[in-house]
Amino acid sequence: MTLTLTDARAIIDAAEAKALEIRQPMNIAVVDVGGNVISHVRMDGAWLGGIDIAINKAFTARAFDIQTKELGENSQPGQQYYGIAASNHGRIIIFAGGIPVLRGGEVIGAVGVSGGTGEQDQAVAEVGVEAASE
Amino acid sequence: MTLTLTDARAIIDAAEAKALEIRQPMNIAVVDVGGNVISHVRMDGAWLGGIDIAINKAFTARAFDIQTKELGENSQPGQQYYGIAASNHGRIIIFAGGIPVLRGGEVIGAVGVSGGTGEQDQAVAEVGVEAASE
Amino acid sequence: MTLTLTDARAIIDAAEAKALEIRQPMNIAVVDVGGNVISHVRMDGAWLGGIDIAINKAFTARAFDIQTKELGENSQPGQQYYGIAASNHGRIIIFAGGIPVLRGGEVIGAVGVSGGTGEQDQAVAEVGVEAASE
Amino acid sequence: MTLTLTDARAIIDAAEAKALEIRQPMNIAVVDVGGNVISHVRMDGAWLGGIDIAINKAFTARAFDIQTKELGENSQPGQQYYGIAASNHGRIIIFAGGIPVLRGGEVIGAVGVSGGTGEQDQAVAEVGVEAASE
Repeated sequence: MTLTLTDARAIIDAAEAKALEIRQPMNIAVVDVGGNVISHVRMDGAWLGGIDIAINKAFTARAFDIQTKELGENSQPGQQYYGIAASNHGRIIIFAGGIPVLRGGEVIGAVGVSGGTGEQDQAVAEVGVEAASE
Repeated sequence: MTLTLTDARAIIDAAEAKALEIRQPMNIAVVDVGGNVISHVRMDGAWLGGIDIAINKAFTARAFDIQTKELGENSQPGQQYYGIAASNHGRIIIFAGGIPVLRGGEVIGAVGVSGGTGEQDQAVAEVGVEAASE
Repeated sequence: MTLTLTDARAIIDAAEAKALEIRQPMNIAVVDVGGNVISHVRMDGAWLGGIDIAINKAFTARAFDIQTKELGENSQPGQQYYGIAASNHGRIIIFAGGIPVLRGGEVIGAVGVSGGTGEQDQAVAEVGVEAASE
Repeated sequence: MTLTLTDARAIIDAAEAKALEIRQPMNIAVVDVGGNVISHVRMDGAWLGGIDIAINKAFTARAFDIQTKELGENSQPGQQYYGIAASNHGRIIIFAGGIPVLRGGEVIGAVGVSGGTGEQDQAVAEVGVEAASE
């Protein structure tokens, strides 16, 4: 079981609508169950540096079946995963905006968002994930 | 002047329709005037290895303002650009499927397609470019 | 549908038996449907340089749903995929020894073997694939 | 003197049994005296992101002849090895789960485990190391 392109588009459309609502252009990416990109969109005016970050937030969320926000809390100095961002050839992002997508209790892909504050990225990603669950 | 997300979607929609017509799932990517990805789509069943190739065919086409097919002809052993694929950190693709998009005589972005034979990739990319020009 | 660790072990055991039979120590790797490594074994005395190659032959065979031997034939100078080895961050191997594993007509993973001549790698990989099909 | 494939399999089997006992799927890797992978196993359901981490915990443990947990303590902000994770092309992991294997007082390889909490990874790696000593 994996996210499909139809799923990815529903996720991106919902996330993009949220980004427009809060007036913050975003990079939005979706990966499948294997961590491979299905689709990516950079809204006009969104960060160039966010292309890589959105894609890799989605990768990270699937690679560890965890929200990147939560992984970040466990990766601060002195915490159990401190240093994890140096692994996986620069593909691990440890701040908010990456969220796994579950169906029937199993992770089947993930969403990654980059372009605003951590809170904005997280809020937009959450709207994307909700669209996937429908 | 650059391609926008609206342009990128028109390009991808047209290219995807062509890919469906020839029954060959494809990766389709669009970059802007700066060579940075605007959007990427992997159709269900398309090559995993084509994600990187579609994106970098588009990058290559903008990076040298040339079709990757034509660059490839100049990059065979003994030709003037032989070895160019070793440059730019693995981002140069020297076979068919990457085409610059022009408006008013200027390159404003590019399309990259990967998933089939060289002829199929080229045909799908051409349909994408035509959609951009309208 | 994907190869599991049980499948991977059956593949590796069969391939290893073949490698012992022809007295050529090998690296043997298996990836899942997403192109991610399930298991790798380096037989005593096998090439150190073959760790990366075996893993990436398996990746390549899944990334393009093709035997690396056949991809190699299409990637010679003047052929349609010439230059493909520069893509995907050095993970594309274009010589014999990587073979997709199919079940019910769909690719569900792949095997990669490195340590001997192209013919030896291919022969050992073929035995691995047969074990997966049983 | 180095770990062999026979040793690596004994290590992995013991570690895997422990992982099953604590119901936490793991990536388990073993490197030889040269720091090169002998074998890697990803249990069904284990993190995709743990492939790289398990292999590189083992590498790190041999590269510095130290447990990655202990190296981590010395790599916190203000400590003597702070920043070491940026070296060796992303192969240095500074949290628990990587342990050198000694025989006759000499390091002859190492084990790396990734998939659970730091405590779980460490516990599984310790069981692997004990199997090597027998």
